Amino acid sequence: MKQSKIPKATITRLSIYYRQLELLESNFSYMISSEKLALLCQVNSAQVRKDLGYFGEFGVRGVGYNVIELQKEIKKILTLDREWNMGIIGIGNLGSALMQHQNLPARGFEFVAAFDNDPNKIGQITSTGLIIRDINELDSLVKELKIEIGIITTPPSVAQQVADKFLESHVYALLNFAPRRIFVPECCLVENIDFSVKLDILTYKLRKNMIV
Amino acid sequence: MKQSKIPKATITRLSIYYRQLELLESNFSYMISSEKLALLCQVNSAQVRKDLGYFGEFGVRGVGYNVIELQKEIKKILTLDREWNMGIIGIGNLGSALMQHQNLPARGFEFVAAFDNDPNKIGQITSTGLIIRDINELDSLVKELKIEIGIITTPPSVAQQVADKFLESHVYALLNFAPRRIFVPECCLVENIDFSVKLDILTYKLRKNMIV
Repeated sequence: MKQSKIPKATITRLSIYYRQLELLESNFSYMISSEKLALLCQVNSAQVRKDLGYFGEFGVRGVGYNVIELQKEIKKILTLDREWNMGIIGIGNLGSALMQHQNLPARGFEFVAAFDNDPNKIGQITSTGLIIRDINELDSLVKELKIEIGIITTPPSVAQQVADKFLESHVYALLNFAPRRIFVPECCLVENIDFSVKLDILTYKLRKNMIV
Repeated sequence: MKQSKIPKATITRLSIYYRQLELLESNFSYMISSEKLALLCQVNSAQVRKDLGYFGEFGVRGVGYNVIELQKEIKKILTLDREWNMGIIGIGNLGSALMQHQNLPARGFEFVAAFDNDPNKIGQITSTGLIIRDINELDSLVKELKIEIGIITTPPSVAQQVADKFLESHVYALLNFAPRRIFVPECCLVENIDFSVKLDILTYKLRKNMIV
């Protein structure tokens, strides 16, 4: 396996291929060509072959990929073959929506603790059955529950502060939903999910295409 | 202006620069170097200059960018200098969270109609003051309210169906939050926001970095 210098876009697409393969399996499709997989994932087939090529030879020329085998391989590559415990800070509508996200537990991503700093929320039980904890309990619960991924769904004004709290508690991988860049040391990982950036892309293209 | 072949990543970064410039202005910073802007946006300064270079010459050598002027220019490029009316289908936690998103109205993105197919929800009023409408009213309300952007926050199983409904009603730009690829004709635009893809990226990097 030549795993050096894998582009992030390849990892993103592997995740998309994986989802598509799951769907194919549930529809009783057991073999698929790179052309068909590419079409379903809205990329070109050379891209599919290149992305998978970083990790090995998975297809059979002229036949295609075995849907179940390829799922297994991608699962290994993306480390979806284990459970990941997540803690979330900021239990508003967005936080609640995320905790109810159907796809996450099925893929090994488990919310094991929910935190807020609002005294009216602390002690309440979420619709998924977690007690909302005081942020001050983060440190002890990270240890106790082995939390490895931190989710930030707070208002933007406190996102950095909350990120710092995660880092102090040795949670080094963060998914930030607050519309504000957060800064972390080199050793840590942040992925940002920002709706308004996507809207900006849409409107830019809308105007360029003149389809409105 | 040489606007041909602008990479999507450039548009994404312009959106991020814009947010940062707003923040700088609110902190009374009125000039900024490309190095400083790059640092705040977590890219390198050559990238900042290249991205802006697609659209013109905005900085002064050795001085930097005028924060307010550059905001204005990016606002024009990203078409943030007008209002965009949005309709949303699927009023669960995620839909409700989005409608309350503080940053959207401030940037000209206005939710003007909310739709669901659940009889228990139809007729209810959202926390932002919209009456939840029956999906069957989509067509007439798109015309009446001049909806140009459609937001999909339904379960994945009906995402394609909902996308088709938007297209039939002549809404050609969609933001899809359902964890399922949706298919639209060439003339239409879809941006996908998928949390679990981002989580896959994090865990892939976590394992590679061996920081857990």
